Amino acid sequence: MSISETTTSEVDVLIIGAGPAGLMLGCWLARTGVKTRIIEQRDRKITCGHADGVQCRTIEVFQSFGFAERFAKEANELCETVFYNPNENGLLVPTERIPDTEPDISRFRHGVLNQGRIEDFLIDCMAEHGLKVERSVAAREFRFNDDDLEATHPVEVTVAHLVPAEPDEVVYAAMAKRTVSRMERIKARYVVGCDGARSWTRKQLGYKLEGDSANIFWGVIDARPITDLPDIRVKVVLHSAESGSLLVVPRERNIVRFYVQLGKLEVGQKLDPSMQTLEAVIASARKIMAPYTLECPVVEWWSVYEIGQRLCRDVSFKNRVFLAGDAFHTHSPKAGQGMNFSMMDSYNLGWKLAACIKGTMDPKILETYASERVEAVSRLLDFDRDLAHLFSGKPAVAERAGVSMKEFQALWMRMAKWTSGTGIEYGPSMLVAEGSEAKKALAGNILIGSHFESRVVLRYADAKGVHFADSLVSDGRWRLICFAGDMRDPTQFQRLERLCADLTSLPTSPIKRYTPPNADINSFIQLLTLTSSPRKALLYTSFPELTRPFVSVDGHHYPTYDQLFSDEPSYLDGGGGAYAWYGVDPSGPGCVVLVRPDQHVVDVMSFEECVQTLGRFFDAIMVQEST
Amino acid sequence: MSISETTTSEVDVLIIGAGPAGLMLGCWLARTGVKTRIIEQRDRKITCGHADGVQCRTIEVFQSFGFAERFAKEANELCETVFYNPNENGLLVPTERIPDTEPDISRFRHGVLNQGRIEDFLIDCMAEHGLKVERSVAAREFRFNDDDLEATHPVEVTVAHLVPAEPDEVVYAAMAKRTVSRMERIKARYVVGCDGARSWTRKQLGYKLEGDSANIFWGVIDARPITDLPDIRVKVVLHSAESGSLLVVPRERNIVRFYVQLGKLEVGQKLDPSMQTLEAVIASARKIMAPYTLECPVVEWWSVYEIGQRLCRDVSFKNRVFLAGDAFHTHSPKAGQGMNFSMMDSYNLGWKLAACIKGTMDPKILETYASERVEAVSRLLDFDRDLAHLFSGKPAVAERAGVSMKEFQALWMRMAKWTSGTGIEYGPSMLVAEGSEAKKALAGNILIGSHFESRVVLRYADAKGVHFADSLVSDGRWRLICFAGDMRDPTQFQRLERLCADLTSLPTSPIKRYTPPNADINSFIQLLTLTSSPRKALLYTSFPELTRPFVSVDGHHYPTYDQLFSDEPSYLDGGGGAYAWYGVDPSGPGCVVLVRPDQHVVDVMSFEECVQTLGRFFDAIMVQEST
Repeated sequence: MSISETTTSEVDVLIIGAGPAGLMLGCWLARTGVKTRIIEQRDRKITCGHADGVQCRTIEVFQSFGFAERFAKEANELCETVFYNPNENGLLVPTERIPDTEPDISRFRHGVLNQGRIEDFLIDCMAEHGLKVERSVAAREFRFNDDDLEATHPVEVTVAHLVPAEPDEVVYAAMAKRTVSRMERIKARYVVGCDGARSWTRKQLGYKLEGDSANIFWGVIDARPITDLPDIRVKVVLHSAESGSLLVVPRERNIVRFYVQLGKLEVGQKLDPSMQTLEAVIASARKIMAPYTLECPVVEWWSVYEIGQRLCRDVSFKNRVFLAGDAFHTHSPKAGQGMNFSMMDSYNLGWKLAACIKGTMDPKILETYASERVEAVSRLLDFDRDLAHLFSGKPAVAERAGVSMKEFQALWMRMAKWTSGTGIEYGPSMLVAEGSEAKKALAGNILIGSHFESRVVLRYADAKGVHFADSLVSDGRWRLICFAGDMRDPTQFQRLERLCADLTSLPTSPIKRYTPPNADINSFIQLLTLTSSPRKALLYTSFPELTRPFVSVDGHHYPTYDQLFSDEPSYLDGGGGAYAWYGVDPSGPGCVVLVRPDQHVVDVMSFEECVQTLGRFFDAIMVQEST
Repeated sequence: MSISETTTSEVDVLIIGAGPAGLMLGCWLARTGVKTRIIEQRDRKITCGHADGVQCRTIEVFQSFGFAERFAKEANELCETVFYNPNENGLLVPTERIPDTEPDISRFRHGVLNQGRIEDFLIDCMAEHGLKVERSVAAREFRFNDDDLEATHPVEVTVAHLVPAEPDEVVYAAMAKRTVSRMERIKARYVVGCDGARSWTRKQLGYKLEGDSANIFWGVIDARPITDLPDIRVKVVLHSAESGSLLVVPRERNIVRFYVQLGKLEVGQKLDPSMQTLEAVIASARKIMAPYTLECPVVEWWSVYEIGQRLCRDVSFKNRVFLAGDAFHTHSPKAGQGMNFSMMDSYNLGWKLAACIKGTMDPKILETYASERVEAVSRLLDFDRDLAHLFSGKPAVAERAGVSMKEFQALWMRMAKWTSGTGIEYGPSMLVAEGSEAKKALAGNILIGSHFESRVVLRYADAKGVHFADSLVSDGRWRLICFAGDMRDPTQFQRLERLCADLTSLPTSPIKRYTPPNADINSFIQLLTLTSSPRKALLYTSFPELTRPFVSVDGHHYPTYDQLFSDEPSYLDGGGGAYAWYGVDPSGPGCVVLVRPDQHVVDVMSFEECVQTLGRFFDAIMVQEST
């Protein structure tokens, strides 16, 4: 290895690894204008295989970045799960059908699409904001300047720029042998290791993934099948009487993913993937699904894996180095959680990092990354362990003891909201308030710590029925959601006017205090107002200006039309009943909900306590001019 | 003009003009694999101004070509129309609000988007199938080889290839002066003139646009306004007491289109656009909408036009040359019909031309282009005349006589289905059967001659709620829609088996007779089956094979999953009640509906008469081997 020279450079954030976790972080940082680099040692993107399940909450996040409709267009939406079990004669038959996404869980639907396409969407989104993946760049040396903690760039990663492989070369195997063209020392304020289960970053920190293997291994095939299984285009959970289990996940372009139970390892035995063959996996699948036939003229990808759950409890180092995605947790793929949790890790981290780097928020908020994500991931591993056990066990048939299919289906259905990702709730911290009975009285169904759920509301200016949460775009802004109540009641209208006046002008108001001078009044905290009275009751221009602020474009002040809504059925898109859904009294005094840039609810408050409560909350986490 | 040489070439279809009509025809012909050229004398696409309204039926056609979601993403959907009229004090106030698209008219919504973007979608769709616009090519000479009618390419158009203008040159003005680089004589089987209101093609045929001018002129502005008109983001139809009328159409990117009534011309007086100024149009708008204010810091485009309705009743010449779009009809823009009718002209023509060129259908079917479109366009002009009159008249205020705003709004609402384009009905012809009471008894709400309307149905294979008409893609195939009835009734199931067996094997069946040997059985006529019984009642693989045929891909026979549906509510996407909507008895004997490649309904028939009726219909229009 002959290297002429090592150059030195500086960056705010260095992301190591351009899989889903790294790319999601890249989206956030690019979108918020943070100086970022994202390096990946592989020189090509994956194009098939790997993860494919995308859960509702993840699609909500895609929507907040503006590309949910690209996903919807290409993905195969899963509508139904059918359970195939042996009947009393031992013949496999469909025994139950359930919806794959429960109604009202999300405005989006669980779908499957190749990980490579998901990465494309993230890469395109980053590129729109000027960030590109640097491929064939491998991290080689790590140094943390302990003495220099006050320094702005304490983390130093030396990387090797590799000569890309020839197009026809088998890349993964050849990686270690590739020629180095030059070395570079990157000094970073922050480093995030999104570098997978064998994370280089984790090793530098001396952290370990801990957990067990279940000693059970499975095969996975992406094929275009010819079969007489009647339900090959819905999700099929199939337990044969004697030959093991199978999961069918229909994919885009009539491809189907088969998860095939292969066998059990002896204690201490390691799975040797090189001993497995595609033919053996297909043969196992045939045996399990008999008497239904299976031919696979086209196989796009296949693999074998061992079931296990592993977690690294330390995910940050001095609030300067973080781990996300598989570097932090691994588990089995069948619940379709892996890629989702990976992206949600860095979605949690991105806006916090951005705010600290911009100097607006105190870096102590970064502690909440570990507290919020380790708890969420621990729950995932518990669920995965239960599911894997029930998946791989022999079913109880007639008199024979075994895994109860009732129990299995009950777990599957009970966890539906949680596996959709919409059930994740972050506990109280400096970024999430404590709940209380008083807050429940204001908005009974808004869960503090959960993401703000969506209902169709009527946009005042253009009479369009829109999803309320579509306003919560990932641009780093906080939102104040004002349930304004009934505008036909003059007292209530005056209370709204008072609230807007206080938010605009009281020195304790964070809008007044922390919105940069000369910036638009909605640039730090955006007010979204939902009335319970119909739209006809009051013309748009009669509302207080903060609810429909003017923004500066090319030196002119234009009115905005996207912050004011009414809880009324739209002409064609449904809606109405949002107050009831959120548990807010439409004839009552209303309330105000503070929502983080990642859509999680911070707090619920009355109009009267709003300015003071917001002031206390933001004063505790914002960098103060004087310090 | 020095031209070295005139080359000669042959093509199946020469399209003259690459506006919406020409491009839509290009989509059809490219999609169906017809050898086509499309020439346009202008060297650049338009990027702003011009037409913008896209009606529901047009979006249905976009969907059938696969790009409706591109439109939906960029267009501004219009949700509401509000009427502003003088109150008893003469002050302009909103007096009524109505939905801009009536419920149940279509699965799509009326929206507005710059004509240039619509053209982009059509251009991209053509390009996917290998057809590109040839710009800077002007038609110069026309010759029809009368003697040579039996010849394959009787139409001869000599075109000039022009040297494109410099990028900063004003193109329209300079067009006539551009240098010719070479001449080419194009011999075509068919020529379609889509070359606008001043159509060169029409002139060659000696045909004329006939009709009146109303001697009323209007201005149109695309601007980003600053205004306190409370309803600037919905459609506003505004009649001032004394100063004329105004139409507000909110557009994409917060642009608003204003149609502004300017004045009345004296009889015989011609509108001189060069005498008009932007400032004068804005001043008129301000006067009309007072006391509301208007500032337009950014104006993207503006123009003035005279209201008039003109029609060319001759739209074809010897079934070899056709006119479409503005070459055939012009009218005022305010009902948002122009671009739509233009595209629907060539959408009607394209599949017919393709079938004749491929030698499968008899060229006499081309006569139906004129009969179907002239009738539709005549109705448009009548409507436009009424609307223009009511639009430009002074409103009745208090005691003063004038245009009744009630009458105006009533016309507006009565015509809603028709202006959406979904009310167009083609009369009986060789391509549309006569209606009868017996047919009404089979399917009471399916209008023969109208397009097949859409309902959400449940796709058997994947349990997804989908729009039935999404199956009617524009690929040149005919569809047989089978209302199969209740599959739990063994007699009814046997009738379906019998029908499928007859369609597959009887020598009189057009599927048997006209599907090319070795082609997939769904390649000429595709069977779409809708059961009234729930999906659970019968497994997918139990249905007759014609309802779920196997198709050949790379030498393998794969099952299809997209032709069988059940009329049952889906888990999350609505549906259920389609039989009732179409007027078919869910417990009855069912029926079969033949649908053309452009989605218009040809006929409704019972299972028993199906093969014979289809046989008669197709035998009359298909080219017979022996002739």
